[in-house]
Amino acid sequence: MTKNATIRTAEGTRSVQLRGDRHVDLGFADLGAWLAAGAPAPAEDATTYAVEAADFAPVVPNPSKVICVGHNYTNHIQEMGRPLPTHPTLFPKFGQTLIGARDDIVKPDETDAFDWEVELAIVIGKPVRRASEEEAADAIAGFTVMNDISVRDWQFRTIEWTQGKIWEATTPVGPYLVTPEEIGGVRPALRVQTTVDGQVMQSDDTGTLLFDPVFLVQYISTMITLNPGDIIATGTPAGVGHARDPQVYLVGGEQVVTSVEGIGECINTIVKA
Amino acid sequence: MTKNATIRTAEGTRSVQLRGDRHVDLGFADLGAWLAAGAPAPAEDATTYAVEAADFAPVVPNPSKVICVGHNYTNHIQEMGRPLPTHPTLFPKFGQTLIGARDDIVKPDETDAFDWEVELAIVIGKPVRRASEEEAADAIAGFTVMNDISVRDWQFRTIEWTQGKIWEATTPVGPYLVTPEEIGGVRPALRVQTTVDGQVMQSDDTGTLLFDPVFLVQYISTMITLNPGDIIATGTPAGVGHARDPQVYLVGGEQVVTSVEGIGECINTIVKA
Repeated sequence: MTKNATIRTAEGTRSVQLRGDRHVDLGFADLGAWLAAGAPAPAEDATTYAVEAADFAPVVPNPSKVICVGHNYTNHIQEMGRPLPTHPTLFPKFGQTLIGARDDIVKPDETDAFDWEVELAIVIGKPVRRASEEEAADAIAGFTVMNDISVRDWQFRTIEWTQGKIWEATTPVGPYLVTPEEIGGVRPALRVQTTVDGQVMQSDDTGTLLFDPVFLVQYISTMITLNPGDIIATGTPAGVGHARDPQVYLVGGEQVVTSVEGIGECINTIVKA
Repeated sequence: MTKNATIRTAEGTRSVQLRGDRHVDLGFADLGAWLAAGAPAPAEDATTYAVEAADFAPVVPNPSKVICVGHNYTNHIQEMGRPLPTHPTLFPKFGQTLIGARDDIVKPDETDAFDWEVELAIVIGKPVRRASEEEAADAIAGFTVMNDISVRDWQFRTIEWTQGKIWEATTPVGPYLVTPEEIGGVRPALRVQTTVDGQVMQSDDTGTLLFDPVFLVQYISTMITLNPGDIIATGTPAGVGHARDPQVYLVGGEQVVTSVEGIGECINTIVKA
C-alpha cells in the first residue's frame, strides 16, 4: 500500500516512495527498474528528499510499450449514440512522448487542435503473456494518471490515430504510481476529472469502464508480453475539447489539471512553442 | 557502401559488416549501438565470422520506435480505385515484435487470418527532429527488408490497426542494413517481392512509393525525434493474402520469402503454435 514516483535529482532520476513529507529513495534510477527488480522495500538508511521540492519525471520514463485504449467509457459511448464495441480499440504512444506530472506542455506550432484526455493508467509490475484473469490482476503494479494529449488535426488526417498521439514530450504521466490496495483494488471506481483554468471539462467514474484494467491486461497480453514498467492508458471519458460544441482547443497559457481520485493530479501549463 | 547485420553468437548479439564470405565484427552488441556511436569502421584485428553460419538477429533488435506506413504504393492504391491520400497513414510495431531474417514465424493459435506484407524499411542513423529535406536524407543510415506480418482478424476488429500489427516475435527484419550508395541513393527504385512456397504474391517497384523515404523521415520527425536504430517501414504493394479473391492466409508449413533487390531476403517458415 504505497505511493511511488520517479523524481529528477542532481544525480539523475531516482525511484522514491512517499512517506509523510519525505520521498524515500528506493535504490533504482526509476520505477521501471524498481518494478523489474521485484519492487523491493527501501533500505533502512535510504536517502530521503523533501516532497515539496519534488521534480516529477514520468512515473516510468522509458517503458518498452505505452498502449492506449479508445472508446472505453460506457457513459460517453452511449451519449454519442454508438453501440458498445465488442473489442478494445488500441493505439500507441512512445516513451519519448511522456513528460512529468508538473512539466510544461509545449504546444507544437504545427497544430491548431491541441486537446486534453484524462485517463486512468495501468502500470505493469510483472512479465505476463496470455494472462489468465488471476495472472492479469497480479501483474498490475498499480495505477497513475495520464493526460493523453492529442493533436486532433493530425490524428484525423488518416484513419489511424497514431500521428495525433506520439508527439514528443506532450503527455504527462504521474505523479504517483499507487498500488491497488490503496484505491480499492485492480478494478477501482474513482472520480476521473479534467479542469482547464479551473473549469471542469471531464468528470466520470473509472468504475464505468467498458473494458476494465484486468481485462485489458489479459487482452493485450494475448498479443505480446507485457513487461514491468509498461503503461496501459484505459481511455478517456466525455468532455474532450474536440467533441464540444463549439470545439475548444488549447492555445497556450492555460493550466490543465487531470486527476484521478486517490492517485493525484497532473498539473501542467500549456506553453506556446 | 556497406552491408551490415546483427548476428547472434555464443556471446550474445554482435554488429558485423559483410566482407566476402566473412562477417567482420564492428565492435558493438548490435547495429543500433553501432549507429548511435557514429557507425565507425571495424578494428584492423576485429573478430570475423563465417557468413554461411550466420544466425541473423533483427538488424536492430531493440529500436526505440518502429513506425509503419500504410497505403503507400501508387499502383496498389489506384488499382483499388482509391484516391491518392494526402498524408501518410502511420501505425506502430514494437521491438518485441521483431525477429531475424531466417527465424521461424510462429502463427498464433488466436488467428485464422495470418498474412504477409513485404516492405522496404528505413533505418535511421542520426537523431533528427523537424528535418529539412537535406537533414532527412542525411539521417537515413540505409535500408533493410521487413515482412510486416499482420493478424487480419485482429487488425480489423476496430478502426485502429495496432492490435493486428504488434504480435510478439512475428515480424522478420533483415538480413542486412544496406547503405544508400549501394542501391541508388535515399529514394531507391528496387524490385520488392513476396513469394509463398515459390509462388509470386507481391511484386512492385519501390520507386513508385507515393511518400518516399526522405519525405517520410521529414514527416515523422515533425512529431518526434527519430533516433539511431529507429525503423520506418514504408508500406506494402498489392498482393497481400487478405486482398486476394479468394483470400489466402498462412496456416503453417509455408516458406515465405520477402525480398528487396540489392538488399536481401527474409526467408521464413511459418510454424503452427
